Amino acid sequence: MLDTLRWVGDTDGHLDLLDQTLLPREVKMLALTDVAGVIDAIRRLAVRGAPAIGVAAGYGMVLGVRAEAPENGFMPALQAVGQRLAAARPTAVNLAWAVERVSERGRVDGSLQALLEEANAIRSEDEDLCRRMGENGADLVEDGMTVLTHCNAGRLATAGDGTALALLFEAWRRGTRFTVLADETRPLLQGSRLTALELHDAGIPVQVIPDSAAAGLMARGEIDLVITGADRIAANGDVANKVGTYGVALAAAAHDVPMYIAAPFSTFDLSLSDGSLIPIEDRDPDEVLCVAGVRTAAANVGARNPAFDVTPAHLLRGLVTDRGLISPVSTAAIRELIS
Amino acid sequence: MLDTLRWVGDTDGHLDLLDQTLLPREVKMLALTDVAGVIDAIRRLAVRGAPAIGVAAGYGMVLGVRAEAPENGFMPALQAVGQRLAAARPTAVNLAWAVERVSERGRVDGSLQALLEEANAIRSEDEDLCRRMGENGADLVEDGMTVLTHCNAGRLATAGDGTALALLFEAWRRGTRFTVLADETRPLLQGSRLTALELHDAGIPVQVIPDSAAAGLMARGEIDLVITGADRIAANGDVANKVGTYGVALAAAAHDVPMYIAAPFSTFDLSLSDGSLIPIEDRDPDEVLCVAGVRTAAANVGARNPAFDVTPAHLLRGLVTDRGLISPVSTAAIRELIS
Repeated sequence: MLDTLRWVGDTDGHLDLLDQTLLPREVKMLALTDVAGVIDAIRRLAVRGAPAIGVAAGYGMVLGVRAEAPENGFMPALQAVGQRLAAARPTAVNLAWAVERVSERGRVDGSLQALLEEANAIRSEDEDLCRRMGENGADLVEDGMTVLTHCNAGRLATAGDGTALALLFEAWRRGTRFTVLADETRPLLQGSRLTALELHDAGIPVQVIPDSAAAGLMARGEIDLVITGADRIAANGDVANKVGTYGVALAAAAHDVPMYIAAPFSTFDLSLSDGSLIPIEDRDPDEVLCVAGVRTAAANVGARNPAFDVTPAHLLRGLVTDRGLISPVSTAAIRELIS
Repeated sequence: MLDTLRWVGDTDGHLDLLDQTLLPREVKMLALTDVAGVIDAIRRLAVRGAPAIGVAAGYGMVLGVRAEAPENGFMPALQAVGQRLAAARPTAVNLAWAVERVSERGRVDGSLQALLEEANAIRSEDEDLCRRMGENGADLVEDGMTVLTHCNAGRLATAGDGTALALLFEAWRRGTRFTVLADETRPLLQGSRLTALELHDAGIPVQVIPDSAAAGLMARGEIDLVITGADRIAANGDVANKVGTYGVALAAAAHDVPMYIAAPFSTFDLSLSDGSLIPIEDRDPDEVLCVAGVRTAAANVGARNPAFDVTPAHLLRGLVTDRGLISPVSTAAIRELIS
């Protein structure tokens, strides 16, 4: 099993981080020794997935403050590094959440050792959150089902078993037998590169489909369940996730295929009343216009590349969290479970 | 402007056909001298688009009968070549329609010269059908609109100005000013390679988007109109078209964005009561698993690659045909216009 990221050594150590942009062709660990490297890795999706970004950002705080505190002082460094890290990507709320958590620990207990302890705590807690999501949602998967997932919400997106894929891994361990269809997830193919890799390694049957094939397969009755992860969930249950999730949700609703989102409590942003307030990142058009570094699109033509979309809560059968299953989805039910 | 295909010479001539698999990087004409070459070109999508496939098949009849009639006799050759050509691809009905039309001419007037005349007639009529679709639908496009299209339904899909894109070309000629979003159309990227090329060459502003981005952009109010082509339309108005069209239609309906299909009479198959009866081609999984010949997906993982899906008539605002606009779509309205 691939290790998504791990801290090596004590406060003078560094962050080993798997460069996911090279998968599945190459397994390369990056040894990151400064916060600029962590920010770059987050921006170019060497590390991706809301929980994994959060864990990486926690360690980024250690690296950044370690370098800048001697010259600028601990508290100013804490604030400056936190601001830079939090701005690396706008949509996944786990990033800001992890930065704030490590910052708060630093404000209370101003030592590098304390920051590293907190970053380690985020990492080990994430493993536990994944385990609980798996346990809370595994029963949704039944023998003989074909399950659709979009993007990658697995081990490579977290420090544990994943969010959406944690359900599948746990169901498989319990003896449930099913098949998975992985949306390839253009433009960066996280489904075909990463999700297919993880599921195949676990012995779970998986086939890749073009993102645009999901609706037609649902119309033909060939998909029984949809599970994806999330980058941010508003107070009313609207979900920002990888672009394409909304289209999947519309098709699932049209064909009465139950769709669930799996996410830990740290992905909820109760400060936003609904999904229209979630910032959506626009990424480099070249991700759409080029494939593997080669321009495939017509010359002199541009592209739009919104990285996420928002799925309204009413299209979802439920939210699988580390604290339990929220179904049906409502503001009240979310507030009750997520503090 | 690129020439999609043209016959060169008399009955001893050959078919020049643009190899669209190489676009936009390379403009290469294939000189096809036998029916096997035409079938191969159709199968591997060197020529694609329902009307263009029909035109190519007409000339394929000439090439095949010319080679086989001396040994097997004209009528047996006519039947054998027709069967092989009609089986090249299953979904687009224009293929079988063109083969039958040339065959019927051959049965009545058993000369190679007659077959070539009929093939030429199909080609020149297609130009006229495109022109009429453009005229009948151009008013649907209004100043300031952002128009979404899927796959390629343009000059490269026909012998004329296209089906869906004929409306855009005609509206532009009339002075209407608008912007186009082209779904890239995985797996073979006909949108980003071909549609973007055609529109940009015509001076029409176009941007490529991932197929999965369309629903989110509609939710944000950024798409005003959807126009696509069709591979086969059943008697009730259900439309088989490039995979992904159905998902676009679901999103358009959810956001009250009008969606139209443009197709000539020859794309209608009144023998099928509804879209569930249209055969859907499954293509090579490697089209999904590899990009530009390089495997991008995880190792030892398969894919599903349905090339088309079916959009039910109730999701469509109308059908633009060479004989007029059908809106609202109904079996009665279709039967009245399409004999």
